[in-house]
Amino acid sequence: MRNLNQDTITQAVIARLATTPDPRLKEILTSLVQHLHAFAREVKLTEEEWMQGIQFLTATGHKCDDKRQEFILLSDTLGLSMLTVAMNNDKPAGCTEPTVFGPFFLEDAPRFKLGEDVAGGASGEPCLVHGTIKSLDGKPVPNALINVWQADADGNYDVQYAHLAKPQARGILNADENGNFYFKTILAEAYPIPTDGPVGAMLKATKNHPWRPAHLHFMIDAPGYEKLITHVFRDEDQYLESDVVFGVRSSLVADWKKKPDGTYDLEYDFVLNPVKQTAKA
Amino acid sequence: MRNLNQDTITQAVIARLATTPDPRLKEILTSLVQHLHAFAREVKLTEEEWMQGIQFLTATGHKCDDKRQEFILLSDTLGLSMLTVAMNNDKPAGCTEPTVFGPFFLEDAPRFKLGEDVAGGASGEPCLVHGTIKSLDGKPVPNALINVWQADADGNYDVQYAHLAKPQARGILNADENGNFYFKTILAEAYPIPTDGPVGAMLKATKNHPWRPAHLHFMIDAPGYEKLITHVFRDEDQYLESDVVFGVRSSLVADWKKKPDGTYDLEYDFVLNPVKQTAKA
Repeated sequence: MRNLNQDTITQAVIARLATTPDPRLKEILTSLVQHLHAFAREVKLTEEEWMQGIQFLTATGHKCDDKRQEFILLSDTLGLSMLTVAMNNDKPAGCTEPTVFGPFFLEDAPRFKLGEDVAGGASGEPCLVHGTIKSLDGKPVPNALINVWQADADGNYDVQYAHLAKPQARGILNADENGNFYFKTILAEAYPIPTDGPVGAMLKATKNHPWRPAHLHFMIDAPGYEKLITHVFRDEDQYLESDVVFGVRSSLVADWKKKPDGTYDLEYDFVLNPVKQTAKA
Repeated sequence: MRNLNQDTITQAVIARLATTPDPRLKEILTSLVQHLHAFAREVKLTEEEWMQGIQFLTATGHKCDDKRQEFILLSDTLGLSMLTVAMNNDKPAGCTEPTVFGPFFLEDAPRFKLGEDVAGGASGEPCLVHGTIKSLDGKPVPNALINVWQADADGNYDVQYAHLAKPQARGILNADENGNFYFKTILAEAYPIPTDGPVGAMLKATKNHPWRPAHLHFMIDAPGYEKLITHVFRDEDQYLESDVVFGVRSSLVADWKKKPDGTYDLEYDFVLNPVKQTAKA
C-alpha cells in the first residue's frame, strides 16, 4: 500500500476499514470516507483550503463547552440535523411532527408541578401554555414526562448568561392522568443563534441571517410511545419562511393569543405515536 | 421554506447558499452540503449516531491545542490529507514526490548553520544527513530554506513532551550556494501516532495499528520553485506497507547506512519543480 494517488487512495482507505468488527461502524466509516473524498475531489480542494477547513473545525471544537454546542449549530445550519430528524421520524399522519433538538437542551432541568411558572425570573410577557397529550387513536396519554425550554425576551437561553444562579425558562413536569398539562412561562420571541463563533462567521460569509422564528421546545416521553422532540412556533413570525436551521413545520405553528390583561395564552395538543410491538422501544 | 423532508431539504440548504458573494466558498459549501447529506442518507444515520458524531467531533476539537492537532490526525487517518496532497502536486516525473504535512510542524523552529546538530539533546542514534537540492533540469538550487523535523528514539516529537525547555529534533537551515546541505540529527524510528484521543479510539475500533514507518520530515522553499513538503523514509521498516496515514512513496524510501562507528549516514537529493511563469508563486 504505497504510492497511492488521487485515483487509488479511496479504495485503499476503505480496504483498511475491512477489519472493523462492528458492521454498522464499518458501514458508516466506509460511506463517510467515500463521500468525504468525493467532496474533496469534486471541488479539487487546495492545500490552503484544507488547512482552512482544519482551522474551522478546530475553532468549532474550541467553542464547545458544557453550555455551548457549536457542532450542533453547524449541523443545524447545514441542514444535517433536520435531515436526520426527517429520516428517523416517518410517523403516521395525525402524529405531532418532530423538529430539530437544537443546542440548548440541558439534562436535569428543575422539576415543576402543573400550573407552576417555569420562567424562573426570565424576562418576557407572561404566557399560560396548556393542552392535552393524546395517542394516535385519540385517547389521552396519562402522566407523560414533559421537558420544555425556550429563550427569554432578549433572545437568550439561560445557558447563554455567564452568571445565572439557577436555570431559567426551562423545566420538567408531568401531565396529569387525563393527559392534560398547563404551566406558566413567557412569550416566545424570535432570536438569532449565537454568532460569535465559526458558525456565525459562516452565516456572515454566506449572507444568511442567523434568526430562528419564535418557538417553545418540547420533549415528551411516555411509556409505550415514541419520544417526541419538537417545538411550537408562533404564527406571523417574520422568520417562519427562513428559519436558519430549516426546522419549521406548518403543523407546529400556533396562535399565541393575547388576552385583555396583556398576558398570552397558548393551547396546543400533542399526538404521540405508539411504539410498534416489533420495534425497539 | 417550511415542511422540508428528506427529499427536499438538500436543495433548500443549497438555495440558501446562493447569496454567498465568494464564488469559491459557494462552490465548496454547496458540494459539502450535497456530500454530507448524501452520506447521512446513504447510511440512514440515526439520531443516536448523529449525536455520537457530534460528540466525536467535539472531543476531537477539545483535544486540539497549540501543540496537538487532532483534526489533522483525523484527516490523515481517513486518507483526506494524502488525497489533498496528491491532487495538488501533479509534478513532472523526476521531481521529488511530496507527502503529508502531518500535525507536528512548528513555526519558528531554531535556526542552524550547515553541519550543526538539530537534535538538541533528543534521544537517538547519531545520524548525518546530507545531499543536494536541484532543479528539474539538474542544476543546483542555491540557498534553499530547509525545515526538518522528526520524532526521537522513543517515538515522540518534542511537542509531545510537557516540559521541554526548548525545541528538539527540528530546525531550519539554508543549503549553500551550490545546493548542498548537511546536518547532524538522530536516526528516525517508527512510531505510533498519539492514541490517547478520538482518533486513537477510531483506530482501535477499526482494528488498525497506529504506526508510521520511520521518517524525517522536510519542507524546502526556494524562490522560483514550488514549495516541497515531504519525508524521507527508512528502507526495511516494517510499516512501509501499512503507514497509518497512507503517506509512503517508494521514491522517498532511502538507505540510512550504519557506519563502522555505529552512527548513521543518510544521503538524499531533492529535485524541485520550477514555478510556471503563468502560475501563482
